[in-house]
Amino acid sequence: MSTVIFTLRRHPEQDRPAIVLPLVRRTRDPFEGLWALPGGWLDAREGLDATASRTLAETTGLTPSYLEQLYAFGDVDRSPTRVVSIVYWALLRADEVDAQVAAHAADGDAPENVEWFAAAELPELAFDHNTIVDYALWRLRNKVGYSRIAHGLLPDEFTLADLREAYEAILGRRLDPANFRRQVEGSGTLIPTESFRTGSHRPARLYRYNQDVELADRGPLARLVQPAASAESR
Amino acid sequence: MSTVIFTLRRHPEQDRPAIVLPLVRRTRDPFEGLWALPGGWLDAREGLDATASRTLAETTGLTPSYLEQLYAFGDVDRSPTRVVSIVYWALLRADEVDAQVAAHAADGDAPENVEWFAAAELPELAFDHNTIVDYALWRLRNKVGYSRIAHGLLPDEFTLADLREAYEAILGRRLDPANFRRQVEGSGTLIPTESFRTGSHRPARLYRYNQDVELADRGPLARLVQPAASAESR
Repeated sequence: MSTVIFTLRRHPEQDRPAIVLPLVRRTRDPFEGLWALPGGWLDAREGLDATASRTLAETTGLTPSYLEQLYAFGDVDRSPTRVVSIVYWALLRADEVDAQVAAHAADGDAPENVEWFAAAELPELAFDHNTIVDYALWRLRNKVGYSRIAHGLLPDEFTLADLREAYEAILGRRLDPANFRRQVEGSGTLIPTESFRTGSHRPARLYRYNQDVELADRGPLARLVQPAASAESR
Repeated sequence: MSTVIFTLRRHPEQDRPAIVLPLVRRTRDPFEGLWALPGGWLDAREGLDATASRTLAETTGLTPSYLEQLYAFGDVDRSPTRVVSIVYWALLRADEVDAQVAAHAADGDAPENVEWFAAAELPELAFDHNTIVDYALWRLRNKVGYSRIAHGLLPDEFTLADLREAYEAILGRRLDPANFRRQVEGSGTLIPTESFRTGSHRPARLYRYNQDVELADRGPLARLVQPAASAESR
């Protein structure tokens, strides 16, 4: 089991956010020294979702706000021994990442060998993990179009520019601000607040997501599949 | 591994097609005597897609035109022993089902214990297979909206009424004929032929699908994942 967990961070060299993910450096063969997705082995008495949550917490200390099964990868040559990996993907806001990391540091149990990488600038990863990340990014790009999935990456209140930059980071292309505003305002997924963000630019209204719209439609499994420890109220 | 394979058949008691699927009667415990999805065990030297194709052929004699991984089901209580099932879903046209079944009958190797059931009228199935079929139907309904996936259920040439009835069977609701015509004609996925179907009604033009449009967008995996024996030319 492995999990691709995405968050949104301002790129250190650019004035716009980028999709980033945590990787764990392998300390033994196969692929010793290479970076790999966080993960671990399925426990015989544990469901798949629970295993994904547990192994993610054990390796990175993170508890995601959104967790969904991605795909089972089982090519015979993906590992020296035959391993089928059931992969999950997850979202977590940057402020929640920071809070969770700080809490672990205060407790003296900060995870080891973990670093964050921009999804667009990954090194060669262990196993077929580059392929897995590509597929997870494709799923994220597809989902963002027909759900409020970007909410899993944004704070409770955000400006339309924040939301557009999140979409731009996910889709990997620039969006026309006027068209974007028209589309999201017409979608019924956003609720304007009475607050504004002030600063160097003219004040920008803050919005929040309409919680009546599902984060993502997972169909009949939605009532069966719940992240073991979800920060998203349903 | 199990596979949900759908085809479209005229319902015996209704004048419209319905989604049907083959099930295999279990001849041993657990769930002896109950119907179950066709499937079998993963071979150590075989990829997941190849296993899905092989086990489907071994149990039902069928080779689908479309095959895609659906989901991994792994609840701890889904079977008396711990079994994670990686489930595929598949489509096959009724005329191809008939041809494949006839070929097996002529060879004297017709599969045993297989019967077809209307997806909307299933009995209680073994394991969590009712849940799996529900999820596969949901995936089918979602895919039909943004791809030419219905092609996997229709002959090469079909009328707009044939196509609408296929959509109605998948979606489980009636569609307005005029709206439907407008939407599919505007989608660029259909090519009108110079042929017409004649009969008791006025002649109806036959259409075929534009093969330049992908059957379904499977993203970065499309170049990796190919059914072992696909009747769909790509």
